[in-house]
Amino acid sequence: MDRRREELLAAALELFSKYDAEDVSIDDVAAAAGASRALVYHYFGGKQELYVAALRSAAVELEARLRPSGDGAVIEELRAGLARYFDFVEDHAAGFAALLRGGPANRAGEVGEIIEGVRRRLVKMIMGRMRVDDPSPALRVTLRSWIACVETAGLDWLESRDVDRGVLERLLVEQMVALLGVAARHDGRVEGLVADFGR
Amino acid sequence: MDRRREELLAAALELFSKYDAEDVSIDDVAAAAGASRALVYHYFGGKQELYVAALRSAAVELEARLRPSGDGAVIEELRAGLARYFDFVEDHAAGFAALLRGGPANRAGEVGEIIEGVRRRLVKMIMGRMRVDDPSPALRVTLRSWIACVETAGLDWLESRDVDRGVLERLLVEQMVALLGVAARHDGRVEGLVADFGR
Repeated sequence: MDRRREELLAAALELFSKYDAEDVSIDDVAAAAGASRALVYHYFGGKQELYVAALRSAAVELEARLRPSGDGAVIEELRAGLARYFDFVEDHAAGFAALLRGGPANRAGEVGEIIEGVRRRLVKMIMGRMRVDDPSPALRVTLRSWIACVETAGLDWLESRDVDRGVLERLLVEQMVALLGVAARHDGRVEGLVADFGR
Repeated sequence: MDRRREELLAAALELFSKYDAEDVSIDDVAAAAGASRALVYHYFGGKQELYVAALRSAAVELEARLRPSGDGAVIEELRAGLARYFDFVEDHAAGFAALLRGGPANRAGEVGEIIEGVRRRLVKMIMGRMRVDDPSPALRVTLRSWIACVETAGLDWLESRDVDRGVLERLLVEQMVALLGVAARHDGRVEGLVADFGR
């Protein structure tokens, strides 16, 4: 990909991570990248497009960080994945909070699709790691719910910062185990997954 | 409040419940209420304002449905509340899905504030019913997470309809108990709440 475009995108992502999108201007991005305003418009067309492009690159980064190694017990990988997730939340604090709390106005379709896409692929990653191709409804709802728990915990942590990150990460692992235990009561196939979890 | 305005609002809410907001026009709302396009503009100014007003009235309706009676065990009230929640989801199916698809994201300022306000007040309602004024961080995260689980389950159900509603409602009650059990491991005060739950 074009190096100049990459530099602009990196500068944009850093600014959108630190500040609410409304408080970041095209001029700020140009200045941070040592480029002209015109060059930003040349590559991205406008601020909304730049925001969407930065969000897309953040999504790619998050998924790369969370890709399971396939080594070790599922529960260990979950622990390691959560630590990397909270690193990401911390690195992109303001942007993450603004995005999930309901940031810039006009962000109907595209932004929502990027976020939904990340969630769907995270559910798939976890299913892959659990060696499940075709989840039962109870398992599907459970994994989607847990992803929502993780997002909620990340947002709550950024807002309040009154819990130790490590405690929150442990809480989330235990929530996953507890939620799978509930699902197992409704679907016998989940029982085996729970048993495999710590192996 | 003005009767004419109320009628327009009721017509708007019904249309926004049945169709994606993009597919509802001012003309549709006017026609459904037997009013002129000009009258809709007179009362609401434009479609975004009308949508926000309809959403606000849906939020009021939802909270009225979910207000706990204070009779019976907390777990019984939770069961009854979930049944009323799913009635609401069913009554406003398309609008609910369009609104929450994209989950905590995909929403601009005013709309985001309405939804966040509902969530905050639901957490408060549950805390009130549990007789907790000042939640520990672990309890706060748990209740917020559970609200996210309920939203996720509602959305999943509208998308897939492959689980019985009653099964999903039971799953959610069990999730609440399981999540509180996890929180109790991190905060001794939650233990007592879990014990009181079935009383």
